[in-house]
Amino acid sequence: MSKIKVAITQHACSESYAENLESGLNGIKEAARQGADLVLLPELSMGLYFCIKEDPDYFDMAETVPGPSTKALQLAAKENNIIVVATLFEKRAKGLYHNTAIVLDKDGTLAGTYQKMHIPDDPGFYEKYYFTPGDMGFKPIDTSIGKLGVLICWDQWYPEGARIMALSGAELLLFPSAIGWEPEETNEENNRQRNAWVTIQRSHAVANNLPVLSSNRVGLEEDKVNKMKTKFWGSSFITGQQGEILAEASIDNEEVIVAELNLNHTEQVRRVWPYLRDRRIDAYEGILKRHIDK
Amino acid sequence: MSKIKVAITQHACSESYAENLESGLNGIKEAARQGADLVLLPELSMGLYFCIKEDPDYFDMAETVPGPSTKALQLAAKENNIIVVATLFEKRAKGLYHNTAIVLDKDGTLAGTYQKMHIPDDPGFYEKYYFTPGDMGFKPIDTSIGKLGVLICWDQWYPEGARIMALSGAELLLFPSAIGWEPEETNEENNRQRNAWVTIQRSHAVANNLPVLSSNRVGLEEDKVNKMKTKFWGSSFITGQQGEILAEASIDNEEVIVAELNLNHTEQVRRVWPYLRDRRIDAYEGILKRHIDK
Repeated sequence: MSKIKVAITQHACSESYAENLESGLNGIKEAARQGADLVLLPELSMGLYFCIKEDPDYFDMAETVPGPSTKALQLAAKENNIIVVATLFEKRAKGLYHNTAIVLDKDGTLAGTYQKMHIPDDPGFYEKYYFTPGDMGFKPIDTSIGKLGVLICWDQWYPEGARIMALSGAELLLFPSAIGWEPEETNEENNRQRNAWVTIQRSHAVANNLPVLSSNRVGLEEDKVNKMKTKFWGSSFITGQQGEILAEASIDNEEVIVAELNLNHTEQVRRVWPYLRDRRIDAYEGILKRHIDK
Repeated sequence: MSKIKVAITQHACSESYAENLESGLNGIKEAARQGADLVLLPELSMGLYFCIKEDPDYFDMAETVPGPSTKALQLAAKENNIIVVATLFEKRAKGLYHNTAIVLDKDGTLAGTYQKMHIPDDPGFYEKYYFTPGDMGFKPIDTSIGKLGVLICWDQWYPEGARIMALSGAELLLFPSAIGWEPEETNEENNRQRNAWVTIQRSHAVANNLPVLSSNRVGLEEDKVNKMKTKFWGSSFITGQQGEILAEASIDNEEVIVAELNLNHTEQVRRVWPYLRDRRIDAYEGILKRHIDK
């Protein structure tokens, strides 16, 4: 398949697993109704963003893959004949957890998983406490519409991940996200942050001549004990192979956005802008260093 | 020095070396008059963009470094007490040529050079005919205001170069460019291309938390024999450490643009957005491959 329709659901999350699952299922249904072949849900959309706080009890929310959420979403994929890309808190073994994306093909089969490789940690985003960094590397997942380069949130700031996905044959880059503002920050700083987030992800489309889908949640979430607050900034978007915005959502509404893509267009754009031809692989060893000290 | 003022000259070029040198010198003077510590000239601004055609006679324009252009610009740097970053067609040895950036410090000394690493080649931009790809790697150049990560035009599409410059201690990224449209292209396609060019360079600021300066020429240039035409799109710009645009030039006027930068701000932004902390250097080997085949 070369011409496809892709969708993103942008929604808020609550304390209720059932409610969040329903929001996801409604988004999947709406995306299918609009003729989408694929729908991307926001990061960890089955609950509040629990990494706002370090709490040992929260590990109880982790589940195996496949497990209850995978099964519910597999059913939805099959019923709606649509590829579903979602993320969840994966329990891989006793005391070993990942932030994991699952890709469910149109027939409901689990096409593959991706474990978040870059794990953030800063006040209100305590992910290093919960998630072991992935050890599967950057591998596209084969589906009935093409190879999906799924990356997760913090991964989006790293051109390396997107590049390796592209070199491995990814035809589409997908970024489920949960990113927001500290409500006390100035508007000016908020705009700089949101624009940087859009820019870096559009740049992965530009550098690799691949469409990019980025899904984010909306809404204010607050931890009553540590008083941390995050206002998730929405702004989910879909770009074409030159980073051009094809569809974008608002900063605060629940929405399903849809765009048509032609995956064959990558070949045409790469002929005009042949970046892959000219990479200096003989001079990139520095990339494998933490810092290049004198 | 942490607070600096930087400038870009955007100008058109003609067949006359003397005229082009004068445009450069006027830009340098104007930048200094506005209090700039550094000024960046467009790529190969001493002549028409000769790579519009493959012509063996054009190799006669190449000059050694140092040579006449270096000396003229060294004098201008010293007289105006300003760092000058320019590029020229370097003759390194008999039959061996580079597209080379020279960095002249405020006292006129040649602080260092950078040879363009990624060499493009497409109709009207026949650079592979003229320039051997650089073999010096991506090394920042030490100056009295800080370490400059100078890259040249086609390099701007490669996150790898910017990243290695950043890991090597660059405090500022600079991109002298000569990029334009085929005049027959649609406005829609022209906008996509120009936006992609701005986006990818802003993304190097975002990914590395470094200011970016990008200088481009303006004007229509045409080769009478092969009928190739390029309308250089100007749009020179300066960003801060989050990719925010601080100054930008028009698509068709000759201009000098100026912005203030605080190089110490990189440390602050990197504490809030600690990308360098979390790079997966254990999982980036794929970057060193041409393509990752199964």
